[in-house]
Amino acid sequence: MTYCVGLLLKAGMVLLSDTRTNAGLDNISTYKKMYTFEDPGERVIVILTAGSLSVTQTTMARLQEAIEDPDSDENSSIMKARTLLKVADIVGACLADVASDITEKLGRHRQAMASATLIMGGQRRGGEMRLFLIYPEGNHIEATADTPFLQVGEHKYGKPILDRVVTPDTSLTDARKAALLSMDSTLRSNLSVGMPLDLAVIREGDCRIDENRRIEQGDPVFAEMSQAWSAALRDAFGKILI
Amino acid sequence: MTYCVGLLLKAGMVLLSDTRTNAGLDNISTYKKMYTFEDPGERVIVILTAGSLSVTQTTMARLQEAIEDPDSDENSSIMKARTLLKVADIVGACLADVASDITEKLGRHRQAMASATLIMGGQRRGGEMRLFLIYPEGNHIEATADTPFLQVGEHKYGKPILDRVVTPDTSLTDARKAALLSMDSTLRSNLSVGMPLDLAVIREGDCRIDENRRIEQGDPVFAEMSQAWSAALRDAFGKILI
Repeated sequence: MTYCVGLLLKAGMVLLSDTRTNAGLDNISTYKKMYTFEDPGERVIVILTAGSLSVTQTTMARLQEAIEDPDSDENSSIMKARTLLKVADIVGACLADVASDITEKLGRHRQAMASATLIMGGQRRGGEMRLFLIYPEGNHIEATADTPFLQVGEHKYGKPILDRVVTPDTSLTDARKAALLSMDSTLRSNLSVGMPLDLAVIREGDCRIDENRRIEQGDPVFAEMSQAWSAALRDAFGKILI
Repeated sequence: MTYCVGLLLKAGMVLLSDTRTNAGLDNISTYKKMYTFEDPGERVIVILTAGSLSVTQTTMARLQEAIEDPDSDENSSIMKARTLLKVADIVGACLADVASDITEKLGRHRQAMASATLIMGGQRRGGEMRLFLIYPEGNHIEATADTPFLQVGEHKYGKPILDRVVTPDTSLTDARKAALLSMDSTLRSNLSVGMPLDLAVIREGDCRIDENRRIEQGDPVFAEMSQAWSAALRDAFGKILI
């Protein structure tokens, strides 16, 4: 499984993904699930992926091919699309096509369906930041002020902390912390989500990635945060009277 | 959906369930999911239910009928079974039979399967406290010192807090609090779990229910705990540096 989360705030966006991929419980690997596309100052797009690895890798490879194709246009390249909504449509159509192709291949062998779900966030110069959740069928929903975060994969363990602290007015520092703590709760409670993590922070209006960092297993800053959070929770727990 | 949790500690057991039942999203009702069976000082059994209401109600009705049947014996009545393991077997067999009967009825109308999962905890005089999770097929697993709590239904939201604070040495007061906070996180993040709650606390060796309480929507003590926990979490969140 997977856990990916994207937060859309007035100050910017925070995107975070784990890297654990498993084919059965006994075949565990590390694959990045965050893909960044950047024309600094002009356009930034970050895509987080959850689902069948063959679907997500092929989708990302096709999107990249379209970007590099000299004949690509605003209808095929996510770096040329006129709006972020159009980017979401291109990504969604590519995802649905790839999933359909692979499911057809699997169907010949009577296997289950292959599919994936994506989070896509970005901004183009002159446009607003936008954050989408793209379903396996290619349709999408968008984060709003009422619901300023989107999650895919093992989303339940890490939802309570986000529900409690994230609003559109949350600072980028706090949003980054909330995303990491949400991931920390998920890592603790579900083995199918694993380190290292990929983190991207985008400031509103910059149209480039402000911070793009891989947090490795044993990262001292993350480990310290994790321990401090455990201690703070136990401390808070001790103070509650009922 | 549902959230039920049972904790097995050296000091006793805590069992907690919500009461929300839904047939589709637009048909929401309140049904108790906690059933208590008590011969004070001799035997106490608490069963928490998650799954199709027709399965859980019929299972509980059949178990009750067997208890009241003057011809019942240690193989049919959970109040006469010689061990808690035997109780788990009787409950599991009854559950699997009922689910199978109802699924057969549904099958005639090409409907989906009906099933349920139970938590059963209890103690008989002279025996140990035991806590089981009983699967739809009637087989079961048991809580141990390594895994001192069992959950059914929407278990993911409320698992992180249990993972962090519950060990076999946890006091009954703290276990009760942990169960209520675990439920609080679930209630906040998932509409399919709802108040009122049913809480049972059993002290080791007493073979009776020490506390059996319905916590209604708007209960001032629960509301205060919920608000204090939110405040404590936000406070803890503010102190974490990363």
